[in-house]
Amino acid sequence: MFQLDPRLAAVSTELAAWPLSRVLLMNDASYPWLILVPVRAGMRELIDLAVADRAVLLDEIVRACDILRAMVKPDKLNVAALGNVVAQLHVHVIARFATDAAWPRPVWGVKPPVPYTPAALADFQRRFAAAAR
Amino acid sequence: MFQLDPRLAAVSTELAAWPLSRVLLMNDASYPWLILVPVRAGMRELIDLAVADRAVLLDEIVRACDILRAMVKPDKLNVAALGNVVAQLHVHVIARFATDAAWPRPVWGVKPPVPYTPAALADFQRRFAAAAR
Repeated sequence: MFQLDPRLAAVSTELAAWPLSRVLLMNDASYPWLILVPVRAGMRELIDLAVADRAVLLDEIVRACDILRAMVKPDKLNVAALGNVVAQLHVHVIARFATDAAWPRPVWGVKPPVPYTPAALADFQRRFAAAAR
Repeated sequence: MFQLDPRLAAVSTELAAWPLSRVLLMNDASYPWLILVPVRAGMRELIDLAVADRAVLLDEIVRACDILRAMVKPDKLNVAALGNVVAQLHVHVIARFATDAAWPRPVWGVKPPVPYTPAALADFQRRFAAAAR
């Protein structure tokens, strides 16, 4: 049975449940940063997914990119399935700016996360829901 | 007209030309590290690709993962489309080991690349060609 890895749950807020994936917001206000977690037990790699699920995941990655682009007009999108620390299959979709704290480096490990304030989190959730419509 | 970004060409060797992508080997013997570059002019983001091309790219990512898994039996695969430095759309597919130089961090910027010797490069090319058959 699928269970969200507690290390992912601890650093994020669930924004939506899409056909395949839970959509999480990483609790780091430094970057608009979504994480897609396919709701399938025991998956570690993209290639572990059934072929039909892979196509759905691709659609959901595209949808996440489209939403972030509409929400924040980033300079670049970063899409990555790494999983060296948390092996449960998850895909990062991150809006990057030439002015952000890590640019041009990847975001991982560059600086400590800046948690959202409750007001900023509510604002992100509201704008995400509007863009996802 | 498509032209491979010279910064990608400078750090890699072409291994194959697949239906959509050129397959490059990053010239860093620290990690078995492929780069897929869709041969389409002016692409920066996954979502810039035509829908049909996206599906082909997904197939080619899966194929690259399968080949690396067969070649080196990694502990984890890392798949990423970042493009903060070189904006031309390219996808990293990297075989990771719990014993490698950057583990568990992402590989980018952790240590200077270790160029392949000619013999090691030829060996990689031979094993890649065998695994890709």
